Amino acid sequence: MQAVALAHASRLINHGPTVLVGSAHGGRRNLMAAAWSMPVEFMPPRVVVVIDKSTFTRGLVTASGHFSLSVPGRALADVVYTLGSESGADVDKFERLGLEVEAGPALGLPLLRGCAAHLECRLIEEPHAQAAYDCFFGEVVSAQADERIFTGGRWLPPTAANADLHTLHHLGAGLFGVASEAVQARQLP
Amino acid sequence: MQAVALAHASRLINHGPTVLVGSAHGGRRNLMAAAWSMPVEFMPPRVVVVIDKSTFTRGLVTASGHFSLSVPGRALADVVYTLGSESGADVDKFERLGLEVEAGPALGLPLLRGCAAHLECRLIEEPHAQAAYDCFFGEVVSAQADERIFTGGRWLPPTAANADLHTLHHLGAGLFGVASEAVQARQLP
Repeated sequence: MQAVALAHASRLINHGPTVLVGSAHGGRRNLMAAAWSMPVEFMPPRVVVVIDKSTFTRGLVTASGHFSLSVPGRALADVVYTLGSESGADVDKFERLGLEVEAGPALGLPLLRGCAAHLECRLIEEPHAQAAYDCFFGEVVSAQADERIFTGGRWLPPTAANADLHTLHHLGAGLFGVASEAVQARQLP
Repeated sequence: MQAVALAHASRLINHGPTVLVGSAHGGRRNLMAAAWSMPVEFMPPRVVVVIDKSTFTRGLVTASGHFSLSVPGRALADVVYTLGSESGADVDKFERLGLEVEAGPALGLPLLRGCAAHLECRLIEEPHAQAAYDCFFGEVVSAQADERIFTGGRWLPPTAANADLHTLHHLGAGLFGVASEAVQARQLP
């Protein structure tokens, strides 16, 4: 993984991939899948992610003031679906699934190996948005990407060589669209 | 296009496609491209979209209290990129590009023909989120989809038969990932 300039961090989730939300507090940690996240500002790089009141993640994020967003690829589809189907309150998902994680460089959050990209974020306190819409805003403080698919501040077109990293886009019930092709659009004259 | 039950409306943008934001007020109308939108609630179906302060769309949405989100497919990539690169303040994009639109069934908003899906939304007043994050929350009041790619409340896997409707996911600078493939994930034992 290579560091990504913070000015380019929004690009890592610009295309609407399903992400993994990482959290840790007081000796507990978790990873959950989330289809609902997006950037809201380029610089400072800010994002928002929906974290339901029923989730174990929400307590860890609220208590620690930190969360990470990781962008898994096709090779992790079963892991992503499983992480979105179980609660970390009931089970240590890392142990049960034998997940290999690294500590994020800025905040030490759990980042799953094999993902295309990672962001670590500091929570921005927005009590109304959290209560009314489960929306957690954050400012990105570290960004990394796998240079096989994102380099020089840009996503590379998907090819056979980076197939494991083609991003997942949850259509529902475990069916994920895979961004396995790209088109270069042109501005109409 | 077939009507989609409001309980299933969130599914139409669950997978993070680039959308077109439609707006109309006082005899003016516009379509802009937006990479940053997501659902925030299943039922009532609520969404959020980022609409920058510099856009012509923002004035129309604020004045009318309405916006639409349409989900274009691969065949519209050049149109989407062009709609995202010009301002409706300067030009009537519909005339210039010869766009064919239909009036939305609930609010009469301009919906571009050839898209995979459409949502019409009533703006939910959230002055702080609008000012601080350019976030416009809305409640979905009509939903439609092309039955070649979404039927019975579910997305169909992408095939050659519905290739024009494979959704676009903006990687940056006019390069769009295309959800041209799907994987059915399974929950790990």
